[in-house]
Amino acid sequence: MNILITNDDGITAPGIKVLKEYMMNAGHQVLVCAPDVERSAIGHAITLRMPVWAKSYSLNGQFFGYASSGTPADCVKLGILQLARFKIDIVVSGINHGANLGTDVPYSGTVSGALEGAIMGYPSIAISDVSHQEPAYETAAAFLTNFLMSFDPKAIPPFGALNINVPSVPLSELKGFKITKQSNRRYDDFYEKRKDPYGNDYFWLMGNVIEEQPSFESDYYAVMNHYVSITPLSVFMNDEKTFNQLRQQFPG
Amino acid sequence: MNILITNDDGITAPGIKVLKEYMMNAGHQVLVCAPDVERSAIGHAITLRMPVWAKSYSLNGQFFGYASSGTPADCVKLGILQLARFKIDIVVSGINHGANLGTDVPYSGTVSGALEGAIMGYPSIAISDVSHQEPAYETAAAFLTNFLMSFDPKAIPPFGALNINVPSVPLSELKGFKITKQSNRRYDDFYEKRKDPYGNDYFWLMGNVIEEQPSFESDYYAVMNHYVSITPLSVFMNDEKTFNQLRQQFPG
Repeated sequence: MNILITNDDGITAPGIKVLKEYMMNAGHQVLVCAPDVERSAIGHAITLRMPVWAKSYSLNGQFFGYASSGTPADCVKLGILQLARFKIDIVVSGINHGANLGTDVPYSGTVSGALEGAIMGYPSIAISDVSHQEPAYETAAAFLTNFLMSFDPKAIPPFGALNINVPSVPLSELKGFKITKQSNRRYDDFYEKRKDPYGNDYFWLMGNVIEEQPSFESDYYAVMNHYVSITPLSVFMNDEKTFNQLRQQFPG
Repeated sequence: MNILITNDDGITAPGIKVLKEYMMNAGHQVLVCAPDVERSAIGHAITLRMPVWAKSYSLNGQFFGYASSGTPADCVKLGILQLARFKIDIVVSGINHGANLGTDVPYSGTVSGALEGAIMGYPSIAISDVSHQEPAYETAAAFLTNFLMSFDPKAIPPFGALNINVPSVPLSELKGFKITKQSNRRYDDFYEKRKDPYGNDYFWLMGNVIEEQPSFESDYYAVMNHYVSITPLSVFMNDEKTFNQLRQQFPG
């Protein structure tokens, strides 16, 4: 397959390097277009009122891919519309350094890279290593390689994407994978207030995951139990239940 | 009610001024916290590795609200957790200059401001004037004022938000409102390639709405026909149909 790879940790991140290696070793043709700096928590931002740049980026003297001034969503648009010299079959965003579970999803540049592929009509996958300490990128890359041997990405519907989270363990310790739902895993946010040298208040966002018993179907439950979590997401955020309730209340 | 207002056009934008005036004239207590510059198309970005600032912003010699260095999502977090001197009942993000229909939703800083409120557990509403030329902010503000007189925001479920798009017409020409679904309205994106003075290629994103016949239930159909569109959205982007299909294929 012809794969466009992006990420939100930036083109120099180890996760994108491992992903590219595994995909090429599996016989896929790969184009990398990724942000020139880390763009974590950038969500689905795109660059509208400014232009974007894309420069060749080399690693060990060899062309590795394009480093763009844009966001992950920009990189997907630019990669597909401008930079690719072959027809893209699938967009893969990652391997992210850290989990994209529950309420991480809307903030995630990695997931947004995949959802951008979905908007553009391409089967798309986001993949993350859930550890913030010592990621096991090889586990995630090997899992995806195997998964793509048996899974036809055309099964991903238009405007849909798979959000894959991989436990940070050796491949031999993975128990398998589960099809899951985005959970309500969230954080108890707070700010630490400080004063800058000019006398102005400023605020650091802090927070820890609120530990609740996750539902059996959830993304979080799967990775807690050493399964890879594969969550089918949609660009459409429609709340069907509330739609039906309000439509009944206001037939309009 | 006690309302936190944010937007993505920035604190100096006319839409936020009209919204605040209408909400206060209707007897609501209002706190404004909005970006200090325009942050359109910023999606659900938040500021994690940097601190955020919030400075008092005055208009005609009177305190208007807080101008923050952060994104709309940051402004909602900061407003609720740090700046509010009263308990917030509802978050309102807008009035945006321009439509947030169909595939605009994931890119929208305005909608993401409301979804941030939803993640934090507050009933939340995004409101946009669909015109990119001459917005009718008074129409949108008057509509919302009336709507909040008969609609209890507690009907918005946890992790849900309403995305309201208002036709850019005089109030008398509004036909009413419809409960709708986020449509697949999208753009035929392309880039215009140029060379900068240093010899590097750079790219401007361009694109027009692809005009297709929208479904009767869609956000786009409502505003095309001079109805206000009210779309119940969810932070959960689960694709239930694909979940069920893949779960059957991979019982795991």
